[in-house]
Amino acid sequence: MTTAAASKLKDRSLLGLKDLSRSEIEAILDRAAYWESQPQKLVPVLQSRFAANMFFENSTRTRFSFEMAQKRLGAQVLNFAAAASSVAKGESIYDTVRTLESIGIDAGVIRLKPAGVLEQLAEKVNVPLVNAGDGNNEHPTQALLDLYTMRKSFGELKGLRVSIIGDVLHSRVARSNLWALQKFGAQVSFCAPPNMQAPELAGDAPYVTMEEALQADVVMMLRVQLERHAEGMLKSAENYREQYGLTEERASRLAPGTIIMHPAPVNRNVEIDDAVVESGQSRIFPQMANGVPIRMAVMERAMKL
Amino acid sequence: MTTAAASKLKDRSLLGLKDLSRSEIEAILDRAAYWESQPQKLVPVLQSRFAANMFFENSTRTRFSFEMAQKRLGAQVLNFAAAASSVAKGESIYDTVRTLESIGIDAGVIRLKPAGVLEQLAEKVNVPLVNAGDGNNEHPTQALLDLYTMRKSFGELKGLRVSIIGDVLHSRVARSNLWALQKFGAQVSFCAPPNMQAPELAGDAPYVTMEEALQADVVMMLRVQLERHAEGMLKSAENYREQYGLTEERASRLAPGTIIMHPAPVNRNVEIDDAVVESGQSRIFPQMANGVPIRMAVMERAMKL
Amino acid sequence: MTTAAASKLKDRSLLGLKDLSRSEIEAILDRAAYWESQPQKLVPVLQSRFAANMFFENSTRTRFSFEMAQKRLGAQVLNFAAAASSVAKGESIYDTVRTLESIGIDAGVIRLKPAGVLEQLAEKVNVPLVNAGDGNNEHPTQALLDLYTMRKSFGELKGLRVSIIGDVLHSRVARSNLWALQKFGAQVSFCAPPNMQAPELAGDAPYVTMEEALQADVVMMLRVQLERHAEGMLKSAENYREQYGLTEERASRLAPGTIIMHPAPVNRNVEIDDAVVESGQSRIFPQMANGVPIRMAVMERAMKL
Repeated sequence: MTTAAASKLKDRSLLGLKDLSRSEIEAILDRAAYWESQPQKLVPVLQSRFAANMFFENSTRTRFSFEMAQKRLGAQVLNFAAAASSVAKGESIYDTVRTLESIGIDAGVIRLKPAGVLEQLAEKVNVPLVNAGDGNNEHPTQALLDLYTMRKSFGELKGLRVSIIGDVLHSRVARSNLWALQKFGAQVSFCAPPNMQAPELAGDAPYVTMEEALQADVVMMLRVQLERHAEGMLKSAENYREQYGLTEERASRLAPGTIIMHPAPVNRNVEIDDAVVESGQSRIFPQMANGVPIRMAVMERAMKL
Repeated sequence: MTTAAASKLKDRSLLGLKDLSRSEIEAILDRAAYWESQPQKLVPVLQSRFAANMFFENSTRTRFSFEMAQKRLGAQVLNFAAAASSVAKGESIYDTVRTLESIGIDAGVIRLKPAGVLEQLAEKVNVPLVNAGDGNNEHPTQALLDLYTMRKSFGELKGLRVSIIGDVLHSRVARSNLWALQKFGAQVSFCAPPNMQAPELAGDAPYVTMEEALQADVVMMLRVQLERHAEGMLKSAENYREQYGLTEERASRLAPGTIIMHPAPVNRNVEIDDAVVESGQSRIFPQMANGVPIRMAVMERAMKL
Repeated sequence: MTTAAASKLKDRSLLGLKDLSRSEIEAILDRAAYWESQPQKLVPVLQSRFAANMFFENSTRTRFSFEMAQKRLGAQVLNFAAAASSVAKGESIYDTVRTLESIGIDAGVIRLKPAGVLEQLAEKVNVPLVNAGDGNNEHPTQALLDLYTMRKSFGELKGLRVSIIGDVLHSRVARSNLWALQKFGAQVSFCAPPNMQAPELAGDAPYVTMEEALQADVVMMLRVQLERHAEGMLKSAENYREQYGLTEERASRLAPGTIIMHPAPVNRNVEIDDAVVESGQSRIFPQMANGVPIRMAVMERAMKL
């Protein structure tokens, strides 16, 4: 690959927000607003372009959101879902991506578990890659739709107080949000039980108490990854809810302008109470809706002619 | 949701035939006849409309039939299939449907196991839902295609003698057919072993002997749901065949004008003999073919602009 | 089915290369070259045609390649994948194919495990079938893309020395290549450990030593079907590599004009070394790329108006 080709590929890929500039992020948010404002559902600007959704880790919601975005732009879609076990090795993931590249896809959306594999892949294949979640590293389109949702609620991101509550240690959503929000001058705080704190992020955002975390413009609850914690480490769900859950009682004490976010799927009555999910301050379903124009902007960026 | 919006939604959804009027059913049958008569396979009247097929219970045939119908009308299709286990709880089904609603689908086709969940869902989401089979309650598009098949064979449904034979207790096909056929003045009889009779339907149709059941215009065999019966309850397959199967011998004694139906997939040589499946009186494969125009009519009704 | 209809169906189906004439094969290769030369990716000549991909045995690559080919031609695509277990019986496969025929597909691409079932199917259904791999019998589109790849490298196939190395016994790729290459006057040799030799092919091509096999224009490595061999029969992977693997050392001794092929997926460092897969003499990724125009030609032949 020539340097020019590699650079062009890099401009089309979306591996993470950590290394994306503020202006590049803003361009995506603005383009999403454009797509959201379009009256037609189907705008076939990507006809004759082929996207492959390669999910080496299960996801219903994210895959559907990407597929909807791709199809609204008129792109052709190939879907691939693999049980994590059968392609657990980075090698197999590489061969699958290379196969799809050989077959002629114009962009690959990829979700995978092993850390660090995505970056290696992107160096070896000659097709734009969009990260749909890689291990506990980044989930850039989720953070982009989160920022988009915040911007719609508050007009701008600068100075916003954002509390990210829950399993920060294993959360790619927390990381992508942190890195993106910092670029816009938002103030991020974390709140997490000791065994869910991420040591390497200690210098990036303060850990605060649950009471302090509720004093914010945005209260972002993370999904408790019940499957990732040994029985002994994770306190019982009820215990977690009492200490770190956004219960109805806690939600009632939020300032009226505070919005509640969650990347979904929610564990109802664990990290967030059932009634809070669909309360007036919740943006959980609007977040899902916002994911589509965000991913339209990202797929257009990856595949436009 | 306003009352007007709720009413409009209700007119687009198809949850069951029990609460659908005879004229509404006839409108669907007539529209199916229109679609069947079209010479072109692809008539893109639903372009820019998105259908989601959400199968929380496995189905190859029904899902393919819906997908063919949707695509023949030019609609965009999102397919979702979940192992029953991972979303066994009604709550998860609700969240999945709400996600798809948020993402912007125009109609959802849904198959699920738990009884009563579909009705609750339809009250909570703001998108037309089409029942592709819910537990042992209803399977309306199957019964519509059955009525359509009968009407093609006999001209009208009034006065038709229809015998429904087999596991009535667990059959949503039996229920949807019963309720629809009653509206048209057809005479439904059931024939089932005692442990497969549905007590709550006792007043709707008489239970007759196998010999009596064969004296009919339509002999509709039900699939023995081998997976739903405890070993002890269900007699061996051979035993079942001898008592309630449409054997070659029994089929040879049917009146020449009698037609044989089955919702498929068939257990060959259990409820129906291999040779009978493709006999001249069998309408089993035409039933499948008729499913496509029926579902085109149903999807058009759900999603038309 | 009339004789004329059966004959027309036979001209559209592709069950294997053994019974296809040299001129028919050449027509497909030539048409693939035409499709490869087209500048547009999407050429909707098959719009309003429906293809069903029915994979009763798992395959990511082959299914994607067919899907890409179908969609590039504008066809509608229905995808079906079944765990081998649930439809292990030929009867179930038959019913699934008949269902899809009834639903109105214009061609079916089918991969299945049991030997001999495909031929029976083709006699019973009235829709063109394309073999995407049936047991250890044939994999015609793979061999077609292999021939296409050889023709691109060498101009013609006549006189080419082709060594097929590995598990010949269980390889449908070996059989389809053998039968097709013979028609063009290529010289095929096999190289396989004794327990992987196919007795019924003994008269078709000589078995040679590994050293002899390397003296060829084309060195075609077969995938070791680790899952098909009992522990005791198959020597350890390392042992296999030493005796029959295309190691870096062996690859370094190939003539400069020799090309290396493999149907993929490769077992890296078993039948072929990692570094050899992407060496300058390897055609493994070009083979995948060539699969798309080949399958465009095959699907067009099956479904053209």
